[in-house]
Amino acid sequence: MKTANNTPALNPTRLWERVDALAQYTVAGQPWTRRAFSDLFLQARAWLTTQFEAAGLTVHLDAAGNLVGRREGRNPNAKPIVTGSHCDTVLSGGRFDGIIGVLAGIEVAHALHEQGVILDHPFEVIDFLSEEPSDYGISCVGSRAIAGLLDETMLNARDQTGETLAAGIARVGGNPPALSMPLRPTGSTAAFVELHIEQGPVLETKGLPIGIVTNIVGIRRYKVMIDGQPDHAGTTPMNIRRDALVGAARVIEVVNGHARSMLDGPDYVVATIGHLVLTPNASNAVPGHVEMMLEVRSDSPAVLRTFADDVMSGVRDRVESLGLQLVCTQVSDSLPTHCTPFMVDLIEQAATNLGYACLRMPSGAGHDAVYLAKTGPMGMIFIPCLKGRSHCPEEWIEPRQLLDGTRVLYETVMALDRSLPVN
Amino acid sequence: MKTANNTPALNPTRLWERVDALAQYTVAGQPWTRRAFSDLFLQARAWLTTQFEAAGLTVHLDAAGNLVGRREGRNPNAKPIVTGSHCDTVLSGGRFDGIIGVLAGIEVAHALHEQGVILDHPFEVIDFLSEEPSDYGISCVGSRAIAGLLDETMLNARDQTGETLAAGIARVGGNPPALSMPLRPTGSTAAFVELHIEQGPVLETKGLPIGIVTNIVGIRRYKVMIDGQPDHAGTTPMNIRRDALVGAARVIEVVNGHARSMLDGPDYVVATIGHLVLTPNASNAVPGHVEMMLEVRSDSPAVLRTFADDVMSGVRDRVESLGLQLVCTQVSDSLPTHCTPFMVDLIEQAATNLGYACLRMPSGAGHDAVYLAKTGPMGMIFIPCLKGRSHCPEEWIEPRQLLDGTRVLYETVMALDRSLPVN
Repeated sequence: MKTANNTPALNPTRLWERVDALAQYTVAGQPWTRRAFSDLFLQARAWLTTQFEAAGLTVHLDAAGNLVGRREGRNPNAKPIVTGSHCDTVLSGGRFDGIIGVLAGIEVAHALHEQGVILDHPFEVIDFLSEEPSDYGISCVGSRAIAGLLDETMLNARDQTGETLAAGIARVGGNPPALSMPLRPTGSTAAFVELHIEQGPVLETKGLPIGIVTNIVGIRRYKVMIDGQPDHAGTTPMNIRRDALVGAARVIEVVNGHARSMLDGPDYVVATIGHLVLTPNASNAVPGHVEMMLEVRSDSPAVLRTFADDVMSGVRDRVESLGLQLVCTQVSDSLPTHCTPFMVDLIEQAATNLGYACLRMPSGAGHDAVYLAKTGPMGMIFIPCLKGRSHCPEEWIEPRQLLDGTRVLYETVMALDRSLPVN
Repeated sequence: MKTANNTPALNPTRLWERVDALAQYTVAGQPWTRRAFSDLFLQARAWLTTQFEAAGLTVHLDAAGNLVGRREGRNPNAKPIVTGSHCDTVLSGGRFDGIIGVLAGIEVAHALHEQGVILDHPFEVIDFLSEEPSDYGISCVGSRAIAGLLDETMLNARDQTGETLAAGIARVGGNPPALSMPLRPTGSTAAFVELHIEQGPVLETKGLPIGIVTNIVGIRRYKVMIDGQPDHAGTTPMNIRRDALVGAARVIEVVNGHARSMLDGPDYVVATIGHLVLTPNASNAVPGHVEMMLEVRSDSPAVLRTFADDVMSGVRDRVESLGLQLVCTQVSDSLPTHCTPFMVDLIEQAATNLGYACLRMPSGAGHDAVYLAKTGPMGMIFIPCLKGRSHCPEEWIEPRQLLDGTRVLYETVMALDRSLPVN
């Protein structure tokens, strides 16, 4: 890996200072929390607007509440080359997740602006609204809407205060009635490229500065409900209990074991029970009801289709033998998304030209890029993050790693502008 | 079992109407909820005071916030014969649990009052404050204080609003500074007897109307903490995860299996993980931390002493092999309490004299009687409840079953008055 900045147009100090400045918009005492739709989020966006403008971009908010900065190109009819990511975070985690994709895009624009470089294509940097699961229960709000996939049901979802997502979008400056059709139809972008932290340990473990995403895993989520009977924990003998938590324990063990058993197989597979609610959840009560969320991610549509059924049929007898009912219901489904092959090649070439060793790899996390792939060619650049950690306060990257990724982004944008037709 | 009321002094209609009236003091839409220290609880106690008075009892609130009704006896120096239970409930469950012990006591007093019967001993009926685990985390608040066992740490415990238990006791009319010594020292009561629903299935299963409690199980509670690492559920391969919930599943399974394995042994043993908190508890996050409460109840001090150690040493390897840390810390400990042998005999004789088939049995639930045993002889009477259910909205008894228990209580009080010395 080279260590000097041989893309002199970029300003690594300015870039890192922006990352640091944006991260400061966090809930005090709960770093790094900047939930979409919150007042803090709106303050961060006001600051972000000033940075877009400093980079010479013309800023507007689209109907889905995405913050868009645009630099016009030489050819007024050319479709835009688009980059971006998101500045919202999960609770307690988002020091770099999302924001580097926005700020690296701004740095590329700023460099073009300072050098007076006019591309053939317009260049756009987007801060997508609420990529992380919002308080309304919907993720990738802004990018879904760009693809026309934010439907009525989603727009009517409510947060805990009773506000609908549509009202939330309107509150941050969007125009929900305009979302009944795609904001950017198929074929409307020349290309989309997103820079993001890997959020996993592969690049760090292998000592590689750049990952080139080949596909983004599909995700299926299931609600798993186990019904037993709540009883007094002191007076109900062990042999007549119907303890839903014991049944849940068996499901948890089997989900984990089944996913582990596929480690040596051909497909990327992870399966997680990350959410569990116990009722009554009192130390002196036999648990009567457990509700869990099972999430399966894979780059194989076949695995996504069969995993939950395989697990449930393997464990059902051992749950029912406890006098329990087991119900597993699919609640969401997204297929794996392939990055556009020429984009994978082009990013790999850009990284190689800069002297970076790199790796083609799947993305285990979902990204706005999934929805932008509906508008045109799509590719993603990964940089490593410390110990592969993300969505936690410890999430960390070094300035050098961010610069590596931004250089590849810059070279990718330049190569796209050179190679893509302008009409 | 006899079915006629051959204790004509008792008024079964009045008794049942009182049970029905007190149960109506419930949170609307969440029957049968009447949490100690709530406004609703205070309203119920105002009503209860009128019923004490209608039964000819002189009412006062003691320093621990226990509502006490007293009928003087012939001998002013005699220690009181005491009965009672509690009118607070857990969330969603307490249609009969507790309140029948108070209202049956009132009915006995009312019958004595109507008949003009003066006992040799004073007779007291007590509604103990907050037998159920209160919002301050402490159970048996009033009866503990009677025994002088409500210590400073407990008095300083806070509820979610930040109020201390001491402030709560003062708010309901008690006098916390007076609780540094027992309100009723050892030897200060002639006897205590409590009527309660069984809260288990044994009497109903055997078709018996009366249970005579031989001992009340001891309870040990442990905080079980499992530490792994929170990670992104999409990007963290199965083989490098440290999923705390998978470790928890193994502990849950082994706790259950170990307690079941003791079913045919000589001791009463139940063990429950009824409370579990998962962090982060998000569908897209690998669980990094699980905190559970393990509760072991037994009439065997040896089992109480060894159960948790046995379980943890059996499962520790399989938890640690997942890269997890397992810590199990004892948080509370109460030894089994034996009912006073002559009380067991006397209650059994009273039931038999009334023609009831009955069973000597342990109590798997804790009761105020545990603490009243510190003040003098103690015994308990159980009646069956529907399907053994309690602490749930479905908790139910038939009027006839309540009358059976109240008759045994009445006969027990009369027999105690005859047989106990008055000085």
